[in-house]
Amino acid sequence: MKKIILIPDSFKGTISSTEVCDLLAAGISRHYPAAEILSVPVADGGEGSVDAFLTAMGGEKVTVTVKGPYMEDVEAFYGLVEDGATAVIEMAACAGLPLATGRLDPTLTTTYGVGQMIADAAKRGCTKIILGLGGSATNDFGAGMAAALGVRFLNARGESFVPVGGTLADVKTIDRSGLLPQLQQVEIVTMCDIDNPLYGRTGAAYVFAPQKGADPAMVKLLDQQLRAIAKTVQRDLGMDVSTLPGSGAAGGMGGGTVAFLGAELKMGIETVLDTVQFDTLLQDADLVISGEGKIDNQSLRGKVVIGVARRTKKAAVPLIAIVGDIGEGMEPVYNAGVDAIFSINRVAVPFSEARLRSKEDLSLTIDNLMRLFRRFNW
Amino acid sequence: MKKIILIPDSFKGTISSTEVCDLLAAGISRHYPAAEILSVPVADGGEGSVDAFLTAMGGEKVTVTVKGPYMEDVEAFYGLVEDGATAVIEMAACAGLPLATGRLDPTLTTTYGVGQMIADAAKRGCTKIILGLGGSATNDFGAGMAAALGVRFLNARGESFVPVGGTLADVKTIDRSGLLPQLQQVEIVTMCDIDNPLYGRTGAAYVFAPQKGADPAMVKLLDQQLRAIAKTVQRDLGMDVSTLPGSGAAGGMGGGTVAFLGAELKMGIETVLDTVQFDTLLQDADLVISGEGKIDNQSLRGKVVIGVARRTKKAAVPLIAIVGDIGEGMEPVYNAGVDAIFSINRVAVPFSEARLRSKEDLSLTIDNLMRLFRRFNW
Repeated sequence: MKKIILIPDSFKGTISSTEVCDLLAAGISRHYPAAEILSVPVADGGEGSVDAFLTAMGGEKVTVTVKGPYMEDVEAFYGLVEDGATAVIEMAACAGLPLATGRLDPTLTTTYGVGQMIADAAKRGCTKIILGLGGSATNDFGAGMAAALGVRFLNARGESFVPVGGTLADVKTIDRSGLLPQLQQVEIVTMCDIDNPLYGRTGAAYVFAPQKGADPAMVKLLDQQLRAIAKTVQRDLGMDVSTLPGSGAAGGMGGGTVAFLGAELKMGIETVLDTVQFDTLLQDADLVISGEGKIDNQSLRGKVVIGVARRTKKAAVPLIAIVGDIGEGMEPVYNAGVDAIFSINRVAVPFSEARLRSKEDLSLTIDNLMRLFRRFNW
Repeated sequence: MKKIILIPDSFKGTISSTEVCDLLAAGISRHYPAAEILSVPVADGGEGSVDAFLTAMGGEKVTVTVKGPYMEDVEAFYGLVEDGATAVIEMAACAGLPLATGRLDPTLTTTYGVGQMIADAAKRGCTKIILGLGGSATNDFGAGMAAALGVRFLNARGESFVPVGGTLADVKTIDRSGLLPQLQQVEIVTMCDIDNPLYGRTGAAYVFAPQKGADPAMVKLLDQQLRAIAKTVQRDLGMDVSTLPGSGAAGGMGGGTVAFLGAELKMGIETVLDTVQFDTLLQDADLVISGEGKIDNQSLRGKVVIGVARRTKKAAVPLIAIVGDIGEGMEPVYNAGVDAIFSINRVAVPFSEARLRSKEDLSLTIDNLMRLFRRFNW
């Protein structure tokens, strides 16, 4: 055993992907102290995404003071990887739910600070920006972000303003001509693992606004505001982002990054695989271990283990999945390239109990796998 | 992968050891159709023990009409292995709980039929009899069995009778001189996985009689009867079996086989390992798979997986344990010779749910292990 790549998703609600990597690496090193272990914790765009990229690629964390969800100053951060050529930003750093605790109101909150972070990275000379969505306290379609980057939103009286979730319908004209010039040299990738459209029953407001503090009446209002801005965007920017899968992510910011910044919406796992140049890493790898909280045969799209499997299969590198629960009918998963799947469950207890012991159970699972490997002189 | 030995215990309350073998064998054959698979389901002496030995060794089943728990005629059976040299008898076949359903009363039930089966095997020329205890409806110290084999029990008036659980104290004299002569050539091994002494708080009556239908008053009575017969045995046969571990098995029959027949009490796993000549089987084996419902580091004595491990370790053959639950602190288990342990749990659900799906979960576990083996070209 010479080179092992660890590239797990988080175990939802129990173990972060970075922690999964740490536990797997410790278990492997115990039996193969000389093995080269590469940890690539998969980021999903939410909280921890910057750290995940920094763990996988190395780099530095930049601290910036930008506007928070209520336009107050907050200290936020983003990551620089690839010698500063690529910036990794998680929008939650300045517009996330924890920053609005106790005053949640998605009609009022803004993504303005996210735009400031993007501007900071662009002015620094980054040629690529990876923008993680997830955990947002906002429903402003990313209009605040766009405003911070020079996009002008004009009301009926021709006055420029920074729209928030409750005032998107007040936008009568959108003027992109003042967009920060440095952005023209920058490729923007928006990480987004959900498929929701901008509005409607499966849209940003109806599905996600309740957890941001919206009651049913407010949900309806927010949905109408998103419909209104989508129309204005279509007229002024000649673009319909309303049905784009992922448009409804982070309070419509998914759609906003496409409309205002020409971003590409991309699954987290594909973003990670491309950014870390996974295919190159695979060339001399002996084993890849991936994992997630639950593996099933429902919607293989965007699943970390499956995304990894497609690459390892092509490269003919063995892939083991270590997961929480294993669903029924795993044939499609094996066919996609997963060689074997092991559950960390070691006692028959409900999830409420299992989650409390998930880290030690994960450690026991990798320990026994490595014992097996060693016994058979792999 | 050429030769694999399967030697599991049952998964208590969910999968019999024979079923475990069948499921493992099916999973292995799917990936290694040419592999030689030896199934040695471990018998614990209870119901299914005869079938387990026949599965492991081949042989034939003999049907006999003997006395049931209430002295009625019942059709029972025992097994002949090693070309008829060894008989395997499970006492439950003619004195088990199912035969007394609806009329459970351990003061009245007898093991007489067990003695008849032993006589049948001895007369047939068997030189070894393996007697499985477990699942008994009786508490007669095996006195009924002994009576059927020629031991005479005399009451205060010098009359011979067949003692039952409620009349053991009526025995004033025990006369072994009429014991079936053929038994002198027969080695008797009593399979017994429990440690309970004959009487007292941890004895046969207090621990096991309630499940045979005894109320607290009857438990006390039965215990007194066992104390009485132990005294008589000590006086007439010069032997104290009251504190012998296992003496309290099957309503005191454990002690009775020692006192009346000179039997050896032996753990199920050791009996199986010796009888199937496990050490010889191991000589050209590539892998051994054992398992049980729960593996832990409490009292390793008599545990199937540990018993197997001690042999595989000496023979340097890899041993994998596939189990239901994995307890804490497995180091002693690894040290005993278990190379790796895998739990069949694949979803975080309580045992009440897990037990219903245990067979398919076991199948999935062996399937994934064999996928791993195949992927690494074992």
